[in-house]
Amino acid sequence: MIAAKYKEMLGAKSVIRELSEYATARGKEIGYENVFDYSLGNPSVPAPEKFKEAVIKLLTECNPMEVHGYSPSLGIPSVKEKVAESLNKRFGMNYTGKHIFMTAGAAGAIAHAVRLVTEPGDEVLTFAPFFPEYHPYIDLSGASLKVVPADTENFQVNFGCFERMLTEKVMAVLINTPNNPSGIVYTKETLENLAKIMTEKAKEYGHDIYLISDEPYREILFAGVEEGYVSQFYDNTISCYSFSKSLSIPGERIGYIAVNPACKEAETLISMCGQISRGIGHNCPTSLIQLAVAEAVDETSDLSVYETNMNILYKELVKLGFTCVKPGGTFYIFPKALEEDAKIFCQKAKNYDLILVPGDSFGCPGYFRMAYCIDTEKVERSLPALRKFVETEYGTKK
Amino acid sequence: MIAAKYKEMLGAKSVIRELSEYATARGKEIGYENVFDYSLGNPSVPAPEKFKEAVIKLLTECNPMEVHGYSPSLGIPSVKEKVAESLNKRFGMNYTGKHIFMTAGAAGAIAHAVRLVTEPGDEVLTFAPFFPEYHPYIDLSGASLKVVPADTENFQVNFGCFERMLTEKVMAVLINTPNNPSGIVYTKETLENLAKIMTEKAKEYGHDIYLISDEPYREILFAGVEEGYVSQFYDNTISCYSFSKSLSIPGERIGYIAVNPACKEAETLISMCGQISRGIGHNCPTSLIQLAVAEAVDETSDLSVYETNMNILYKELVKLGFTCVKPGGTFYIFPKALEEDAKIFCQKAKNYDLILVPGDSFGCPGYFRMAYCIDTEKVERSLPALRKFVETEYGTKK
Repeated sequence: MIAAKYKEMLGAKSVIRELSEYATARGKEIGYENVFDYSLGNPSVPAPEKFKEAVIKLLTECNPMEVHGYSPSLGIPSVKEKVAESLNKRFGMNYTGKHIFMTAGAAGAIAHAVRLVTEPGDEVLTFAPFFPEYHPYIDLSGASLKVVPADTENFQVNFGCFERMLTEKVMAVLINTPNNPSGIVYTKETLENLAKIMTEKAKEYGHDIYLISDEPYREILFAGVEEGYVSQFYDNTISCYSFSKSLSIPGERIGYIAVNPACKEAETLISMCGQISRGIGHNCPTSLIQLAVAEAVDETSDLSVYETNMNILYKELVKLGFTCVKPGGTFYIFPKALEEDAKIFCQKAKNYDLILVPGDSFGCPGYFRMAYCIDTEKVERSLPALRKFVETEYGTKK
Repeated sequence: MIAAKYKEMLGAKSVIRELSEYATARGKEIGYENVFDYSLGNPSVPAPEKFKEAVIKLLTECNPMEVHGYSPSLGIPSVKEKVAESLNKRFGMNYTGKHIFMTAGAAGAIAHAVRLVTEPGDEVLTFAPFFPEYHPYIDLSGASLKVVPADTENFQVNFGCFERMLTEKVMAVLINTPNNPSGIVYTKETLENLAKIMTEKAKEYGHDIYLISDEPYREILFAGVEEGYVSQFYDNTISCYSFSKSLSIPGERIGYIAVNPACKEAETLISMCGQISRGIGHNCPTSLIQLAVAEAVDETSDLSVYETNMNILYKELVKLGFTCVKPGGTFYIFPKALEEDAKIFCQKAKNYDLILVPGDSFGCPGYFRMAYCIDTEKVERSLPALRKFVETEYGTKK
């Protein structure tokens, strides 16, 4: 019998995907260069040369049996060590290769992390606005995702709601900073306060509460934003990283889990990842790509375009009267829509060939996301359309 | 709280892995060339040049944003179409790209297949001897793997036991031909009989019973063995393929699911794979490798060494008095041990630097597996050790 659970999921379409498909179809009519497609979070800059060179060198100079051979179930030891060294150097941590588990991107990392520290029926908390795929990631593992309402003032943490929702059933808190969709970076104070409350509650309930930190945007930080590292604030932290955005290789499905060495049974958790993999058919990311990222572990693509784009858009949005928290990183911005229902707002924007994503699926109705991982030239060309849209639909400088 | 289920699994060590680790350690003492390591099923021939050339061409001649970009959740359409065409041409099927789902090897394929057609509590049947990883693949999905005892006469199917065990709770039957560990290829009669019984029982129970066909060794067939394609025998077949063995790229984690177009709701099943992926953090195999295998979809490595090795070993084993069914494919052979407890037999073999794997973990005690994916020169050098082992421990020509 066909599994009902997955069949039922087929009905629910992804709003982002639908908008992206619309943009592609519209592009066929008027030329894609004339569609201001802010729907998809796809890197818009090429992978660094060093990554390409590393892959070619592996293929041409190394033993193919080793390059294409099975990876050990926890990842290739030399790769894990290079990841650990890089994190230690940058963030003053004391990881060894034994605290690292190589994954198929952040999605694979979160799939393992949630299975590590929850049993079916347990709760995982996250904060709106949040990446909508957290729902299938968590809910299909057997645990249940609960969403703390947004602090729309500055998209930090709504601590009042958090404390109320952090019940005994919560085994993990899932955060994402720099944040998709808000672009906000959690402050030191936010992380300290989060750690303080979680430590107190863990003590009160007599069980550990883990912090799962989803960090694919860690390297995309803008001027004036202090670089922090979540795991420094809370021992029981499982960091989930992806090279998708930093190296512009989202299709190569490569990332890792780093368990804080101070975490209780840290090395056991990493070993358990290998057992979880057996059940979900993961069996390591590709050997070739593991070996290549190890050669480029401290590299990034030229990420400066994202900050350039953000500054252009932020300035224009504020000028047009939008309420908008200035992003500290990522390639997203999350302004308040100019009418209550952001779905209607985004629907109207399509008439101006502006593809904006309503905040509803991010758990934050009334706001909308713009993914400005596009050419700066196109961002600039989109401004007259944005102005025309706002002025026509909502009056000059609302 | 750390998930008890996965923590408890840490105790159980893999016999194959332990033996492989022993062989490596022993190799450090006496030189690895002197250890006759028949433990691991790792391809021993390099990937075809065409595969390497395809990867380099993608990196040097194509747009990196496309090559390294996100794959659609069901796989890259052009890749899926090439897979379908190749299968149609070779096996007279009528797949389209819509019947193909790209996976991280056969492990990923089986992880999706079992979730497609079972609910927690359902049963999946397989036949001894079987690949031991089937247990975590099935059991951790929530379904439960039941093993039909071996037909030790010829390692086809024990139909008496099969019919008794094919109860109403069984939603899928998982087969593996050519078989790891026996090297046996199911005959046309076996497949026809299997299909007949499954069709009858499905009708009797009023629910579908799916055939999940695990086919990583499909291209490693020896002289005189008729090439068949499982899906031709039974409509409700989900074929699970891996390029690991045919292209000697096990570390690149690439394979696919092909759902027979005559299967009920075939395209729905493929779409459901995309939903299952969201829950297990799979999100497609790497784009680069998908694109590269599409260029090499009808290629294989030079696989002839496996047949050469099999013939040498089979002849010697028979000469030494072993009961042994001649393999029709793969790079495994599965003789009967010369004493009742194959674990003791294999333990004694270690004294002759012969690394053999007892059949117990394959669900077939009293037998042992030799993985002859090693250089022919080494197979030949192992024969005196094999002779000495048998003659010393069990008398001349037992």
